[in-house]
Amino acid sequence: MNKVKIALLGLGNVGKGVWEIFKNNTEEIIRRSGCEIEITKILVNDINKDRGIEVPNEILTDNIEEILNDNSIQIIVELMGGVDPAADYILRAIKSKKHVVTANKQLIAIQGKELLDLARKEGVLFYYEGSVAGGIPILKGIEESLTANKIEEIVGIINGTTNYILTKMSLEGMDFETALKEAQEKGYAEADPTSDIESYDAVYKLAILTSLSFGINVNVNDIYREGISKISSHDIQNAKEFGYTIKLLAIAKERGNSLELRVHPTMIPLNHPLSNVNDSFNAILIKGNAVGDLMFYGRGAGSLPTGSAVASDIISILRNDMTLRSISLVENADLQKTILPREEFTSRYYLRLTVKDVSGVLGQISTILGKNDVSISSFIQKGEKDANNIVRIVFITHDTLEGNIMKSIEDLKKLEVVDEIKNLIRVEKFI
Amino acid sequence: MNKVKIALLGLGNVGKGVWEIFKNNTEEIIRRSGCEIEITKILVNDINKDRGIEVPNEILTDNIEEILNDNSIQIIVELMGGVDPAADYILRAIKSKKHVVTANKQLIAIQGKELLDLARKEGVLFYYEGSVAGGIPILKGIEESLTANKIEEIVGIINGTTNYILTKMSLEGMDFETALKEAQEKGYAEADPTSDIESYDAVYKLAILTSLSFGINVNVNDIYREGISKISSHDIQNAKEFGYTIKLLAIAKERGNSLELRVHPTMIPLNHPLSNVNDSFNAILIKGNAVGDLMFYGRGAGSLPTGSAVASDIISILRNDMTLRSISLVENADLQKTILPREEFTSRYYLRLTVKDVSGVLGQISTILGKNDVSISSFIQKGEKDANNIVRIVFITHDTLEGNIMKSIEDLKKLEVVDEIKNLIRVEKFI
Repeated sequence: MNKVKIALLGLGNVGKGVWEIFKNNTEEIIRRSGCEIEITKILVNDINKDRGIEVPNEILTDNIEEILNDNSIQIIVELMGGVDPAADYILRAIKSKKHVVTANKQLIAIQGKELLDLARKEGVLFYYEGSVAGGIPILKGIEESLTANKIEEIVGIINGTTNYILTKMSLEGMDFETALKEAQEKGYAEADPTSDIESYDAVYKLAILTSLSFGINVNVNDIYREGISKISSHDIQNAKEFGYTIKLLAIAKERGNSLELRVHPTMIPLNHPLSNVNDSFNAILIKGNAVGDLMFYGRGAGSLPTGSAVASDIISILRNDMTLRSISLVENADLQKTILPREEFTSRYYLRLTVKDVSGVLGQISTILGKNDVSISSFIQKGEKDANNIVRIVFITHDTLEGNIMKSIEDLKKLEVVDEIKNLIRVEKFI
Repeated sequence: MNKVKIALLGLGNVGKGVWEIFKNNTEEIIRRSGCEIEITKILVNDINKDRGIEVPNEILTDNIEEILNDNSIQIIVELMGGVDPAADYILRAIKSKKHVVTANKQLIAIQGKELLDLARKEGVLFYYEGSVAGGIPILKGIEESLTANKIEEIVGIINGTTNYILTKMSLEGMDFETALKEAQEKGYAEADPTSDIESYDAVYKLAILTSLSFGINVNVNDIYREGISKISSHDIQNAKEFGYTIKLLAIAKERGNSLELRVHPTMIPLNHPLSNVNDSFNAILIKGNAVGDLMFYGRGAGSLPTGSAVASDIISILRNDMTLRSISLVENADLQKTILPREEFTSRYYLRLTVKDVSGVLGQISTILGKNDVSISSFIQKGEKDANNIVRIVFITHDTLEGNIMKSIEDLKKLEVVDEIKNLIRVEKFI
């Protein structure tokens, strides 16, 4: 039987998962790949660190040259994360004619086109299923199975940390800070949670999904981004009363020859399949012009689920007999599409504000909204006025341009009767 | 650019979908396949029939020889359904070194191994994504992306007709006959609905899923099968009261070196993701030992969704540069596993019966159940006794062997106080 040597760069959470999978599922992997796979080297920072996992010490190395210069190693599996030095190591691996598997979303989102172009030029395979939505096979799904479709829309819950926090807030009434703390204690959120909470992580993943689905090379800075830290228990409760739940959605929609790309907390109807995607689960809804609505649901992170995607990528390389058949981000990335500016987004909007309890206040607000072509679909006054004569109100608008909402908010802030604009949340209709 | 000629066998619902997709998504298909694909021949029964679709009359033929003997045709797309004459045409196509795509579940379930073995021997590719769950890319998902997993369980809603009927019964209170009639009027059920209603269709699909996932060649007769025609509005209502909904599930579970294979109506908890899969939608939940729970959701039938799977298979063949890389049903089909007999299934059970309203009746029933190692989890008496002194009762048991339930029912039937055993429905727990 064909014997193949591979090396892992990194032995953190996902690296350990890959190691475990190759150890526990040896029989399945041999049967499906037709090869005996041996992990011969693992790059780590500290060879002597106790990792709570049985890996023979002699395969650990802190010297990348030992791996890059070893001609018997045919596949490099990059699991370090971050752009530097991962990009350099991968570039050098490709030039040494080694095939590459990575789960590095940031690297692929930022430098994917360059790396894939090089891989193609050098005739090596390059897979990165683990970079988006952990164990959910969404990239191969798009790349292998939706090829006959014009993809029209992607809507996904693709960050497990924020979904865990929003689930705790929605189902257990926790406030944001408490839910974040619990997520950190359970290992779902990092000590510095910025990348998840402020949606940078989801933006990287949406950039990758968009490149594959719409055939363009997306600059991550062109994706509109909002985090979840402004969501309060008030918003969660109000959403419920309107029949919605709040999820952090990553959205890519084709609009003519343009794309609407945005990541933000969103109200979605309680009877929509995405509304039941709870805890750290991920789900991605794709609309194709032939297949219709398709949803993929599963574990979007974690040692074994992401390890499953990485290990399957390794097997894909072996089943292709190492012949060239890379994921076509490269081919696709030549199409040109305009990324719509925020002002041209279309959505419904939930607006929560506090106003003075004086007669005519609603009339003044309606006049301003009307002037900006915004019409109200639902309205609730929340509770009684407080000691300062202030009442809380919430609206949901009909579909409108985000530019109109932005102008309305500017105008509302100038009204003497308006105390404070508390929050603005988009409401997805799913027609 | 590489030009490729293909032929369709059949121009029914799915054939029309494939035709439309190639017409409407030409640009995407050229970009992703790298080829210009021309449908040069279509086999039909009646060349002059009006199909409500613009197909040039000169490419229609009622003579299979025109296609099989045309060496310029490189791919055959079989969309006729049924085993005869589809099997013969495909066998001959493979021997003529033509690649094959089919959406024929019955053929693949019954003769898949033989056809795939031949394809491998002759060095042609053979894809059949459209044969299970329409547009949902479940076969490639298992085959390409879950390869590093030991698959432990598959639970699916894979028949749209029965799901439509059960949805109407559950959400709109229709009785079975009315819901079936509506499904027929809307084109979701055929004039003779036996294959769907009695679960033959779902059994074929489960056989294919099982072969791919567990590496065995399943005989469809080894799959336990029950239809939905015995489900009454009483059962639907009782399920709701217990916190369940009723779905037709196809289930394959690994138990040691054995498999539990069954298709039957099942009560599932209302908060489970499968319970929200309504109307003609399909969904398949797969549990892998690395990836955990994964769910695929989408349109399980229909002209364009199934056409999407078929057209993507054609593109897969072209992207593989026509090199040999067939789906590995063949390789996998050599493993040996025991298929468990019905008596050894494990489940919870809902039992609906009518009994005489005399004192001690519950004691007599409990004694019989206890003697057979069956214990009761929930119990409801439904309404008051009728004019004949008969009351309706329902139980749900704890986990037990189906053999014990079967013995209990035999014993209960002999009790003088038991009027009639009305229905037995399995209850899935999803631990």
